[in-house]
Amino acid sequence: MPTDYEKLMDVVREVGRFRAIGELLDWDQETQMPPKGVTARADQSALIAGLAHQRLVSDETRALLERASADDGDFAAATNIRETRRAFDRAVNVPTNLVRTIAKTSILAKDAWAKARDSSAFAEFAPSLGQLIALKKQVADHIGFKTEPYDALMDEYEPGAQAAEIATLFDDLQAQTVALLGRIQNATHRPDASILARDFPVGRQETLSRRMAEAMGFDFDAGRADVSTHPFCTTIGGSGDVRITTRYDEHFLSSGLFGTMHETGHALYEQGLPAEHAFTPMGDAVSLGFHESQSRLWENLVGRGRAFWSHHWQGLRELFPEALSDVSPDDFYRAINTVGPSLVRVEADELTYNLHIILRFEMERAMFDGSLCVADIPEAWNDRMEALLGIRPPNDREGCLQDIHWSLGAFGYFATYALGNLFAAQLFTQAEKDLPDLDNQIAAGHNAELLSWLRRKIHCHGQRFSANDLIERVTGEPPSMKPFMVNLTAKYTDVYQLAPTP
Amino acid sequence: MPTDYEKLMDVVREVGRFRAIGELLDWDQETQMPPKGVTARADQSALIAGLAHQRLVSDETRALLERASADDGDFAAATNIRETRRAFDRAVNVPTNLVRTIAKTSILAKDAWAKARDSSAFAEFAPSLGQLIALKKQVADHIGFKTEPYDALMDEYEPGAQAAEIATLFDDLQAQTVALLGRIQNATHRPDASILARDFPVGRQETLSRRMAEAMGFDFDAGRADVSTHPFCTTIGGSGDVRITTRYDEHFLSSGLFGTMHETGHALYEQGLPAEHAFTPMGDAVSLGFHESQSRLWENLVGRGRAFWSHHWQGLRELFPEALSDVSPDDFYRAINTVGPSLVRVEADELTYNLHIILRFEMERAMFDGSLCVADIPEAWNDRMEALLGIRPPNDREGCLQDIHWSLGAFGYFATYALGNLFAAQLFTQAEKDLPDLDNQIAAGHNAELLSWLRRKIHCHGQRFSANDLIERVTGEPPSMKPFMVNLTAKYTDVYQLAPTP
Repeated sequence: MPTDYEKLMDVVREVGRFRAIGELLDWDQETQMPPKGVTARADQSALIAGLAHQRLVSDETRALLERASADDGDFAAATNIRETRRAFDRAVNVPTNLVRTIAKTSILAKDAWAKARDSSAFAEFAPSLGQLIALKKQVADHIGFKTEPYDALMDEYEPGAQAAEIATLFDDLQAQTVALLGRIQNATHRPDASILARDFPVGRQETLSRRMAEAMGFDFDAGRADVSTHPFCTTIGGSGDVRITTRYDEHFLSSGLFGTMHETGHALYEQGLPAEHAFTPMGDAVSLGFHESQSRLWENLVGRGRAFWSHHWQGLRELFPEALSDVSPDDFYRAINTVGPSLVRVEADELTYNLHIILRFEMERAMFDGSLCVADIPEAWNDRMEALLGIRPPNDREGCLQDIHWSLGAFGYFATYALGNLFAAQLFTQAEKDLPDLDNQIAAGHNAELLSWLRRKIHCHGQRFSANDLIERVTGEPPSMKPFMVNLTAKYTDVYQLAPTP
Repeated sequence: MPTDYEKLMDVVREVGRFRAIGELLDWDQETQMPPKGVTARADQSALIAGLAHQRLVSDETRALLERASADDGDFAAATNIRETRRAFDRAVNVPTNLVRTIAKTSILAKDAWAKARDSSAFAEFAPSLGQLIALKKQVADHIGFKTEPYDALMDEYEPGAQAAEIATLFDDLQAQTVALLGRIQNATHRPDASILARDFPVGRQETLSRRMAEAMGFDFDAGRADVSTHPFCTTIGGSGDVRITTRYDEHFLSSGLFGTMHETGHALYEQGLPAEHAFTPMGDAVSLGFHESQSRLWENLVGRGRAFWSHHWQGLRELFPEALSDVSPDDFYRAINTVGPSLVRVEADELTYNLHIILRFEMERAMFDGSLCVADIPEAWNDRMEALLGIRPPNDREGCLQDIHWSLGAFGYFATYALGNLFAAQLFTQAEKDLPDLDNQIAAGHNAELLSWLRRKIHCHGQRFSANDLIERVTGEPPSMKPFMVNLTAKYTDVYQLAPTP
């Protein structure tokens, strides 16, 4: 006879199965589906989202949650029960019809967004965006919140996150970012980033991407890589089927290269989650902030480091001899670490990136406290961009239409990107302590020990610990922006030959 | 207030939605999924297949079927009620658990089959095959049958088909085929088919495939084309998302070329079904035999005809100048119409193709009446191949492991391929009567009028008429093998310069 816990896990795995099917429907829409498939896809996604929700909030789940218990010391069961209860409590007051409506609306909104973005016409996307904000307000009301509706939405991606706390953190982050940016902008030494804008044929970029993903440890028997408008990583079949996407720009090497390293970082987390716990919380990532720590660690701490390129430089130059024959490894290192205000978040440098996040966080918070209406979004975006970064988007395509997230109804998501940057620096600093030979290993092309450290310290735990607890457990320190600022200050002091601060 | 009929259609559309999601899971497995994704995929497919079945056989469906009625003259409603009742009656006695088990087993069996085929080791596939036969026997018993279990399985693909009747038809077909084959084998004139085995680079074959599909009228905004081990056509999102696959052989042009025309023929039917009836019987194909009539009509009656190549020959030669510079259009026409015993069904010529079908039909019938056990399949296959075609497969890869169907549990399917050949000839003969200018149009590269005729005569009707009724309605004759034999006799008399029969 199965125990109540085992029965509960059967339900949870079925919910996970529905979610994975939903991921496949989304992945297919982004990478494969022909344009005229969108209407049927919207109905299919709504059907699956509704079933996942219905199964999670069923009376059966409620009864099993009341009865299920973990044996003493069985931390896996305790984790699974605790996190299932959390998910149940979040979902139970949300009507399934609302879940279905949001799924359907967002499939159509994604389509409308892509078209609006192509023609840089915010007005074409505005009705869908308005609908999604209204629907997500209802969700927040059903879930409930202490301080503001936006908290209820953030909690989906970063459990326990509170907008007011994040805002305080971001104030500090903004101040320190702007101070360092000021020093960089005043530097007389300027690296030449234009070498990254030379001719990089897409076919050879694809070869490079594959090589980078393999060098990092991505298992192509348990995943694949494709091209999409907006790069992402998704899990279709537990750790056995994890898919990344990239986009290539023939005249901007970083887009495909670092985009791939970023998504591969996410994928390594997914491929490293314990397979025996697939589709249960113990087989799931801690939070999106933690997920982002994995992608940013590989993209920035490894991929924008000197050690990594001391191994991969030769191969890179052989792949693009026309573009890179007159470039030294040092030139390249400086080029991939230039800093400056830019319009597009996913192509921003490590330092200004967080300002893009702060802008989105502030705007979303305003949408949900009612102080920003949809029609005013483009101008508010542009004004805020100018205030934060000193540049104004010439059009909505490079402004408020650049991200896919709002078309997915994924409000409350962006802050996790900045948290991920901070976590990544904390983790990498600790990895350097735990693995004294790390730099030499990366320089020798061996990334396996770093990956193994991540698997041991983070991936294997699934959702056993909260994000804050896990950071503290691994690094001995609570969440902190200090390692992030220390790392970047050191890097840019080198790259820009900054004068020491008094 | 929606009527009972409208409520019934909501259920039917939801069942259709589940089926379409199941199709996506399958398509993805065949074309995209990494190897380690198979375990999770098996569970996902089982989940969706179970839900589709559960919804179809629910008490709600039963009650709605009892109450729903069509207004006088509303043939769409009458068709939908009739065919939903048929589907309900077939499904209602089959336990949902059995449906789930078959779905899961077949996903794993497909994987086992692909591996066994690669290493030409039937023993590796035998356990899965044994399981599937046993499971499908249970299905046949639950559905019920008058004469033999195999009838219950055939009925899924060709409503009303009876093995005994098909066997009689096939006896006649075999006799006439063997007679014509004998005359061809005795002919002194032999066309040179080796030109099709020259160097045809795959990249340019892909260009050709795309061109052929477009020439036939395939809408790439409502579909896509990919590569898979076993070519197929599947419908993911009604007429708005129809996908075909092809496989290419650098040293056999026909495989990719006629494979694409074949699957495009299927796809044109799916893209031509009435969109307003999507996911209901009125928006579905009549039968698999009828489906195959569409693919074979385009592949053989159009694609292996002189008219078609009088338009496309120039482009073909420009695409493959090295391979075809010394070939005349007439040489090419004869090459693509050579006849001879061969091992692989999908690459067989028009005449011997049906013998491959007869072999499979006889073997499956024997599996289900208990006279053929799994272990004996390879030898039985090889013996029968030798008796029918005079050649013996050197290995199982080219013998009993060549087809994907058994790994899908699709027993009872093969006969529809031969029926499709016969229907195709009847339909094309009628099209030539209805469209006196047809040959000239095809020769001028205009296939739109033929497609429009098919849409008007067949596609727009969905399942309004049974296969036999529709053939009679369109051609004025009941199903018959006469046009098929007449066409082929005329063609081969020309190609092989056969002496007239006394």
